[in-house]
Amino acid sequence: MIKVTIYNEGEHEKTSEAVRSVYPDGIHNCLKAALESDDVVITTVTLDTIEELTEEALAATDVLIWWGHMAHNKVPDEIAKRVQTAVLEGMGVIFLHSGHHSKPFKLLMGTSCNLTWREDGDQELVWVCNPAHPIAQGIDRFIKLDHEETYGEPFGIPEPDELVFIGNFEGGEVFRAGCCYRREYGKVFYFQPGHETFPTYKNPDVIKVIKNAIYWAAPIYRKKLDCPHVKKPLEA
Amino acid sequence: MIKVTIYNEGEHEKTSEAVRSVYPDGIHNCLKAALESDDVVITTVTLDTIEELTEEALAATDVLIWWGHMAHNKVPDEIAKRVQTAVLEGMGVIFLHSGHHSKPFKLLMGTSCNLTWREDGDQELVWVCNPAHPIAQGIDRFIKLDHEETYGEPFGIPEPDELVFIGNFEGGEVFRAGCCYRREYGKVFYFQPGHETFPTYKNPDVIKVIKNAIYWAAPIYRKKLDCPHVKKPLEA
Amino acid sequence: MIKVTIYNEGEHEKTSEAVRSVYPDGIHNCLKAALESDDVVITTVTLDTIEELTEEALAATDVLIWWGHMAHNKVPDEIAKRVQTAVLEGMGVIFLHSGHHSKPFKLLMGTSCNLTWREDGDQELVWVCNPAHPIAQGIDRFIKLDHEETYGEPFGIPEPDELVFIGNFEGGEVFRAGCCYRREYGKVFYFQPGHETFPTYKNPDVIKVIKNAIYWAAPIYRKKLDCPHVKKPLEA
Amino acid sequence: MIKVTIYNEGEHEKTSEAVRSVYPDGIHNCLKAALESDDVVITTVTLDTIEELTEEALAATDVLIWWGHMAHNKVPDEIAKRVQTAVLEGMGVIFLHSGHHSKPFKLLMGTSCNLTWREDGDQELVWVCNPAHPIAQGIDRFIKLDHEETYGEPFGIPEPDELVFIGNFEGGEVFRAGCCYRREYGKVFYFQPGHETFPTYKNPDVIKVIKNAIYWAAPIYRKKLDCPHVKKPLEA
Repeated sequence: MIKVTIYNEGEHEKTSEAVRSVYPDGIHNCLKAALESDDVVITTVTLDTIEELTEEALAATDVLIWWGHMAHNKVPDEIAKRVQTAVLEGMGVIFLHSGHHSKPFKLLMGTSCNLTWREDGDQELVWVCNPAHPIAQGIDRFIKLDHEETYGEPFGIPEPDELVFIGNFEGGEVFRAGCCYRREYGKVFYFQPGHETFPTYKNPDVIKVIKNAIYWAAPIYRKKLDCPHVKKPLEA
Repeated sequence: MIKVTIYNEGEHEKTSEAVRSVYPDGIHNCLKAALESDDVVITTVTLDTIEELTEEALAATDVLIWWGHMAHNKVPDEIAKRVQTAVLEGMGVIFLHSGHHSKPFKLLMGTSCNLTWREDGDQELVWVCNPAHPIAQGIDRFIKLDHEETYGEPFGIPEPDELVFIGNFEGGEVFRAGCCYRREYGKVFYFQPGHETFPTYKNPDVIKVIKNAIYWAAPIYRKKLDCPHVKKPLEA
Repeated sequence: MIKVTIYNEGEHEKTSEAVRSVYPDGIHNCLKAALESDDVVITTVTLDTIEELTEEALAATDVLIWWGHMAHNKVPDEIAKRVQTAVLEGMGVIFLHSGHHSKPFKLLMGTSCNLTWREDGDQELVWVCNPAHPIAQGIDRFIKLDHEETYGEPFGIPEPDELVFIGNFEGGEVFRAGCCYRREYGKVFYFQPGHETFPTYKNPDVIKVIKNAIYWAAPIYRKKLDCPHVKKPLEA
Repeated sequence: MIKVTIYNEGEHEKTSEAVRSVYPDGIHNCLKAALESDDVVITTVTLDTIEELTEEALAATDVLIWWGHMAHNKVPDEIAKRVQTAVLEGMGVIFLHSGHHSKPFKLLMGTSCNLTWREDGDQELVWVCNPAHPIAQGIDRFIKLDHEETYGEPFGIPEPDELVFIGNFEGGEVFRAGCCYRREYGKVFYFQPGHETFPTYKNPDVIKVIKNAIYWAAPIYRKKLDCPHVKKPLEA
């Protein structure tokens, strides 16, 4: 049984009819409905309820999924830091789309996570460049998305530990669309598709990728690296 | 002064009018003319003269550039192995385009180096994904090539130590177009552009990349890792 | 059910009383007895029977364990190449101790795999440097081996994808003792302990590491990267 | 001409006679005297003058060297963040010894940077595990330090882009003593030796390593990754 918490800031849904028409119950509930199964139980949190992301809640979460965009700055620094710490101690985390600029992702990467962007509704082909990776399991050569926001290189991240997907956009850009990192006891996956005005999270292949990523990121350990004063190893 | 040796198998030039019309003096001589400078002296070798790639010649080469395609199998195993050894002992090497399937590249990678391919003369945009890298110096956001052979992922290589370029092809593919590896004392750069029927090596940006790669790959040391039987470090 | 094949060249056992006294049934049978379980079935092969490592046998092997030393050169090139190919197509492989110089390891690494060595029976502490890794599961801070052959840096390998263990030798050396690589569909683990004259493979922690590595290396897919001529992605 | 700024918090020197006896003018001035040359000009800053690390000062610094320990928390968050930003925009940085727990190092790594430690004055042998690396140039197999503070694995850092040194401590520990990272336009080197009560920074090999690291980390570019809204590449 994997316990997943989905954080979706849920602000676009309040103000944009375009977004509401695609995700009438919010991105989080669309994801929850698509991802929940006998093996995966899901809790959702939005910016309005973000204080629910307590230390205890994170300790009880195997994998956190994070979608944010217009309200990154409203996430309290303390909660961002709390997420980072939970990851270092074993919680898995999946950052979706504009989550590249979220506070916890930037804390975990140590970089700006900048990129170039356009909103022209380009078609995107999300190519599998590492077909052996568990996150790519069940995906053919590429995922076709009729319309996505265009994200382009350079993407200001550390060299991924494993690069799983690269996006090709109709207008000509490329983007490292699926990136894996290990950070102490925790695993991090960044996945680029998911603009709020397109039905990306209704695409079965996108859901399959996120589902695979949940299994991949779920911790086998839950521990904490301390900084102990030790005795000599053979005297300890 | 950097000593560069260019190996171009030079077989397409013999049999194809289309290739001869683009590279009347052979790909090697086109590259030589474009790359030679006060700092860079260049020798060329073709399949016909491949026996010139002796141990001594490789020991005197700072950076070897390798273009091959239809005659990979005619390269003697012994010479391929000799190139691998020279790289491990410090010689830099740049594999161009279909050199991904050359014997020395496969020996250095340890993998199949397979990929998918089409010959539809697609436009390619070669994007800089690591603008901090010395090989990308002087290149804008991307290099535009009106026509290239299409190479697509998955590309059967180890995860690159540094990924510098990603190609976007008009028909929809992506490809890790510029990949850096360190192998013992030597540096390896793979660069995808350069199909024999297109004037890719007349593109000033492509030449700039290869020139940058020469400076990047040129050894600061020329040594050999041995497997010595040693004494205790403090008794040695 | 994981199908494991253990290759132990089995030559030292023929000629050395010292080795026979530690491993009376051969290293392979010691490992087999320690590793076999309800989940893990094991076949053994020695140099005398190495022709049993057919394509079919490798296709039916989830994880191959390789111990070799004095007879590396007697392994037919064709079988070494066959092992490399099987790994690229998904078979896991664990190289033990002097397997660093085996033909298939060198083929997979693309490097010399040289190192420095001494035989003074030094005590070794094998430290966990990546406690989050599944291969380190159940291991405390370090494994204590009263006597091991000393292997020292520099070790001529590509930078590991994940470094799990580092050895400290009493005489002063260090060595990257547990190294993980992904090569196309296959996973590779190198583990340094296991000199033929010491009872290393009777150490429960060493066995635990190898057991963990079997689970880690066992394939989730078994596929082959080809080099297909393709159509445009949206026409295919 | 490389412009180096050395930050040494300089607090131990105020309160400890043991430290003053080794570094009567402070660690910063010892390093400055040892590192300054025709090519390298050096400015020093201590905690007392840390406000001198303005944006302008960092923009004028090619490589920042950072030694801190007991007063990490007194470094203003804003300055730590400013250092991180300067690195992402091209400034090189070298963190020494207990700088592993400094605010800017932790910001750049995204992890706890925890480790185990003892103060028993162990002898350390700092082994070169990547002799091809420019930072190891001129160093023999290892650097011998008669006494150092013992740092042990696990070290809570992302897998280094390049591991150059591994330390062996007399009491039995190992430690990844020299670690390289690329972070956007900047380079980061962590080097473990340098406890305040031992004359480590008077060791010529240690100085050679730091000197090499200055040349390695000095930027070839000084740029900033933005997050621009762009036009289609071929319309831009």
